[in-house]
Amino acid sequence: MKRTVNDIRIVFVGAGNLASGLAKAFRRQGARIVQVYSRTEIAARTLAAEVGAEHTADLSQLSGEGDLYVVALKDDVVKNLLPVIAAARRDALFVHTAGSLPLSVWEGSGAGHYGVLYPLQTFSKRREVDFRVIPLLVEAARPSDAARLKEIAGMVSDRVLEVTSEQRRSLHLSAVFACNFTNHLYDLAARLLEKAGLPFSLLLPLIDETTRKVHELSPRDAQTGPAVRNDLSIIESHLDALSATPEVQEIYKLLSRSIYEHHQL
Amino acid sequence: MKRTVNDIRIVFVGAGNLASGLAKAFRRQGARIVQVYSRTEIAARTLAAEVGAEHTADLSQLSGEGDLYVVALKDDVVKNLLPVIAAARRDALFVHTAGSLPLSVWEGSGAGHYGVLYPLQTFSKRREVDFRVIPLLVEAARPSDAARLKEIAGMVSDRVLEVTSEQRRSLHLSAVFACNFTNHLYDLAARLLEKAGLPFSLLLPLIDETTRKVHELSPRDAQTGPAVRNDLSIIESHLDALSATPEVQEIYKLLSRSIYEHHQL
Repeated sequence: MKRTVNDIRIVFVGAGNLASGLAKAFRRQGARIVQVYSRTEIAARTLAAEVGAEHTADLSQLSGEGDLYVVALKDDVVKNLLPVIAAARRDALFVHTAGSLPLSVWEGSGAGHYGVLYPLQTFSKRREVDFRVIPLLVEAARPSDAARLKEIAGMVSDRVLEVTSEQRRSLHLSAVFACNFTNHLYDLAARLLEKAGLPFSLLLPLIDETTRKVHELSPRDAQTGPAVRNDLSIIESHLDALSATPEVQEIYKLLSRSIYEHHQL
Repeated sequence: MKRTVNDIRIVFVGAGNLASGLAKAFRRQGARIVQVYSRTEIAARTLAAEVGAEHTADLSQLSGEGDLYVVALKDDVVKNLLPVIAAARRDALFVHTAGSLPLSVWEGSGAGHYGVLYPLQTFSKRREVDFRVIPLLVEAARPSDAARLKEIAGMVSDRVLEVTSEQRRSLHLSAVFACNFTNHLYDLAARLLEKAGLPFSLLLPLIDETTRKVHELSPRDAQTGPAVRNDLSIIESHLDALSATPEVQEIYKLLSRSIYEHHQL
């Protein structure tokens, strides 16, 4: 790792949505992507072609030329593969990208320099995201590795922050509420409208405004609706309208009660 | 109602966030706001001053000069007051603005021309909204009143749609999911981050992207996260992290199960 940050050579272990977004972002900043590994050869080849790298579907053929190895694999397979990955080059820096895996998964892997590089964002194949505004949360065991990692992350994002494994778990959990669960509520709303013969697009201005509001107000101050007003006649009418779908009715009840109780505090 | 739509004279019965936004939007399009009523005199006076109208806090003093009376009061008081309001001028057009009240609340009020004008949006005192993109959902008993109402609504919005009372109830219910419940999930996420010593603002890029995605993909296709992948080790770890707040843990369980089950269909 004697090169300057802009000359960095990166190996991507994984070629999913996150790896793909991150590899392209580093490439745009002039980093050299040496190699892309994926168990699925077509995925490895496709991303490799986009970022000017070699590709492999054989983990034992991982390049020894990387300064940084970015491991973006499914959580349940990461741990077993770390010793194989760390064997590629002992003195390189190794990071995983998982919100839910602690730094300590690297212990015993054989890697001397390791850490975590967690982008707090949702990635889809069909959408490019702007990495500059995405928080990149970094962690490393050694202070010198943490400093190096912050410098590297700073190539692609203006929002680099060092957090502990415990904080990262809280971030990941809060992201499930703010992104995955929120999207499911949009889905439930879409189904209700579909049954009524109305397009989901009618809700988009409301959804946009709900999002814009929390840029200016705290979510607590932004809360509106029948539950926070404890408007029981509307709530009853809504529960009645949901009687054919008890599991959706249960979600309505639980969230309404939670809103009401949080605002009594 | 012999005047053209742009010469329309409007009386606002109510001076809350919705009435305020709507009155200003009509005023900007050249409509004349004749009078603003609110039980709270200061609210009536404040909005009246902003839109160049008279004001009153006495419903028996409602102006007889309106072509259109817009009733934007709390749902639970609307019904009892409609006969008093309708007495102001028998041949005018009367509308309420509630998502959850059927058109039929006007029956027996004495109004000859009546309907509903429901803006599908969330209104806050501190934020101005752009009415042109807000869906305005209209309904009337007589076709000629519906046509007139669509023309009037078209002054302030480019998205005017005629819906039935049943469809409007579905829209209101879906808005509770997509706006009120979504905002509460943001609030729960904010609390989790606060406990971890991290600012809510870290989540904003993720929240923005979650919203942008449903402009391009259906919410179903946009779904990501541990529940849709059925990643049990992450789900277990999250439930464990929520063990101190059983009601939030219950929300996590219920929404995760709902996501998983909907995506098995």
